[in-house]
Amino acid sequence: MTKHKSRKDMVQPPSGFPELLPAEQIVYQKFLDTVREVYELFGFAQIQTPAVERVGILTAKGGDEKEIYTLSRLAAGPGEKSQTDMALHFDLTVPLARYVSQHKEKLTFPFRRFQIQSVWRGERAQADRYREFVQCDIDVIGRGSLDIMTDAEMPSVIYHIFRKLDIGPFVIRINNRRLLQGFFEHNGICASDIANALRIIDKLEKIGTDSVVSELSMQLGIKEDEARAMIDFLSTQRTTDETLDFLRSQQMGETFAEGVAELAAVVEGIRSFGVEDAYFCLDLTIARGLGYYTGTVYETQLVDFPQVGSICSGGRYDNLTSAFSDEKMPGVGISIGVTRLVLKLIKEGVLKPDRATPADVLVTMMDARYRMKYLRVAEQLRSAGVNTEVYLESKRLGNQLKYANRKSVPIVLIAGEDEIAKGVFQAKDMRTGKAIDVATKDIVATIQGMLK
Amino acid sequence: MTKHKSRKDMVQPPSGFPELLPAEQIVYQKFLDTVREVYELFGFAQIQTPAVERVGILTAKGGDEKEIYTLSRLAAGPGEKSQTDMALHFDLTVPLARYVSQHKEKLTFPFRRFQIQSVWRGERAQADRYREFVQCDIDVIGRGSLDIMTDAEMPSVIYHIFRKLDIGPFVIRINNRRLLQGFFEHNGICASDIANALRIIDKLEKIGTDSVVSELSMQLGIKEDEARAMIDFLSTQRTTDETLDFLRSQQMGETFAEGVAELAAVVEGIRSFGVEDAYFCLDLTIARGLGYYTGTVYETQLVDFPQVGSICSGGRYDNLTSAFSDEKMPGVGISIGVTRLVLKLIKEGVLKPDRATPADVLVTMMDARYRMKYLRVAEQLRSAGVNTEVYLESKRLGNQLKYANRKSVPIVLIAGEDEIAKGVFQAKDMRTGKAIDVATKDIVATIQGMLK
Repeated sequence: MTKHKSRKDMVQPPSGFPELLPAEQIVYQKFLDTVREVYELFGFAQIQTPAVERVGILTAKGGDEKEIYTLSRLAAGPGEKSQTDMALHFDLTVPLARYVSQHKEKLTFPFRRFQIQSVWRGERAQADRYREFVQCDIDVIGRGSLDIMTDAEMPSVIYHIFRKLDIGPFVIRINNRRLLQGFFEHNGICASDIANALRIIDKLEKIGTDSVVSELSMQLGIKEDEARAMIDFLSTQRTTDETLDFLRSQQMGETFAEGVAELAAVVEGIRSFGVEDAYFCLDLTIARGLGYYTGTVYETQLVDFPQVGSICSGGRYDNLTSAFSDEKMPGVGISIGVTRLVLKLIKEGVLKPDRATPADVLVTMMDARYRMKYLRVAEQLRSAGVNTEVYLESKRLGNQLKYANRKSVPIVLIAGEDEIAKGVFQAKDMRTGKAIDVATKDIVATIQGMLK
Repeated sequence: MTKHKSRKDMVQPPSGFPELLPAEQIVYQKFLDTVREVYELFGFAQIQTPAVERVGILTAKGGDEKEIYTLSRLAAGPGEKSQTDMALHFDLTVPLARYVSQHKEKLTFPFRRFQIQSVWRGERAQADRYREFVQCDIDVIGRGSLDIMTDAEMPSVIYHIFRKLDIGPFVIRINNRRLLQGFFEHNGICASDIANALRIIDKLEKIGTDSVVSELSMQLGIKEDEARAMIDFLSTQRTTDETLDFLRSQQMGETFAEGVAELAAVVEGIRSFGVEDAYFCLDLTIARGLGYYTGTVYETQLVDFPQVGSICSGGRYDNLTSAFSDEKMPGVGISIGVTRLVLKLIKEGVLKPDRATPADVLVTMMDARYRMKYLRVAEQLRSAGVNTEVYLESKRLGNQLKYANRKSVPIVLIAGEDEIAKGVFQAKDMRTGKAIDVATKDIVATIQGMLK
């Protein structure tokens, strides 16, 4: 008993590493397939990088050392070290930077790539924070320069993905870091404090105006009324065109004006890409915490589930490969953290895991004497692209139907002596309980009709 | 200069971790997609397990400690340990055993799952041996028992996959470990030596008869002429039916007879699954080195590339979860090591990476004044499922065509002032160089026709 219990404990996986049952996995995989489909629809090419990079690569781009998992071998041969110089990547941007630096002479620029892979972060496991999760990234990397239209294409890709996923209304919130930088400079915040100011402003939605005001005042010495005025300026709600008009009317120096011009160009571009106004807005409080963004920034929110936070974020950065090369390579990209998103959507009932198998048809083994007939009909269905399982165990029909039900196979085929004599199969729709006899030669067409 | 050089060294990835360029990645991904498609066609459900398991899980099933990569955090907070009790999985069978043990009350048995994931092995990097590679596994796990027909279904899945992949003729070689065990027992090899005898016999193809004879004699004390007679017995070439007749005529005890009966049932099953005789054979020298196989074993060879070795292997095991549970869970499975296989097939010219993008169409930006028209035609094409990229940089048309050529985009759309005035786009087939004018409303149909 003790032995049994300890074995049971043993099979508990480490916390923070989510694992799905087959029905959830199907929903999850369909989500990933849709993301990939849209990425390819826009002509992004897939790459996959190793799970590991050299430790020096990961720290060169400023990874948090506490979050980085390094690799050692459990045992080493004589004269070998068990420690390696490799660690698991914590995002897909650093590997992209390394990939582009390494292979740039073999790539075509602007380089449009997507990457769907696991990343690992050694954080304390907590609700909604995972140590392993999948990111779906696209980035476009220019050699020397990259047109601002690329910044407008990203929201268009997001728009297509989330429309196709059909998980409810969403809004892509857009801002520009140059605009914010100019604004802070104009408000007398010194250059060395601006990164910090951006980080604090970015928390507005989470901690509220009062806390942001107090942080700005405590950490950066900004007077409270000035801090409040700044937040008012940034958070006043207006339509997109009103915001642009308002911003254009402000005299806040060259950097600010550049940011406004970029933002206006992005808005014009987004509209020309066919994204409806209801699906995006300007939000001057969006700053993105990450240091490397330099221009346009994006966040995406599900209107009905704001508590999920941003489901797709990204932005423009001046130089992807600064750590590895002297050549300037500006880029713009977005990332969807699908693991957290899909698990949330399942929990909220937006995504409904309802089938534990891809099989559309289960051919039962009612009478082993007719096994050849069963296998042949399965072959016919598979040749027509219908996912078909044949039940191979010797069990009573009742058990076989229970099996189909538990996995939610929609259609079951049954043929005993009578059906075989008549040259038919009984096709039972497990969703409705209705059963009809179908001549063997008509099975493919009939099943395809029932599955529609 | 020195600085530049050291940076260049820095971006060399660790050896043994293969990485593909976009064109190779497309070929590789198509391969994976086909494998997944066939797995689903047979009603296997996907699962994915975390990259890591607890170290105790991995060693409980007998993993080689030198091959296991454990995880540590690069830095730890105050009072925290950097060492973890987690390690990267080295195959997908151990995670499956843990998954089934943990979730068995929520799964439906026989449990049919496929799993396509990376595995990691800390071996010395050498040609064709990778430290990270992708395996595509299917297994069927029974609770208590599992019909021998499942052993016959596996070759049928292999058959469909490699026919569909269209990489040349292949042969699935089938044997039975029980038969071999009975044969060795009958030949006076003691129980404790049989695993070793299987391991040695398994090397026959690699090291030849003489070396196997000498190993059997040196390591197990078998007389050389007896060893040679055993190898003769196992390696005599016969047709499938002749082999079965020959085996049935031998009196070598109960275990041997059980093995022969299983093998005969599997052959009958394979044929009823519709696998043509040219695609499988009995090969009594196939033993599979791994300790856990207990019945049917498989290997698959490309006829034109025998040097690639087995491209898909597997077998039957009596009890998947013995390390974690007292319940008997027999299973049968196969595994394709795709990374090594695809890289080999690319090297041999069987798979030809010819396109660096999924885009079928590039809409050029000939004149930015007509950007809206370009974006609109791209939208039309995407709505019809045609992967379409719009060139967004301000470059001369020549550069844009060069860009399309370098990535091997098959069709390019061009419209300047004249075309726009006439309401047409020029559709240029980059494969033939031919260009035609197409009315905007006919573009989708025309492009679809050109792509067929």
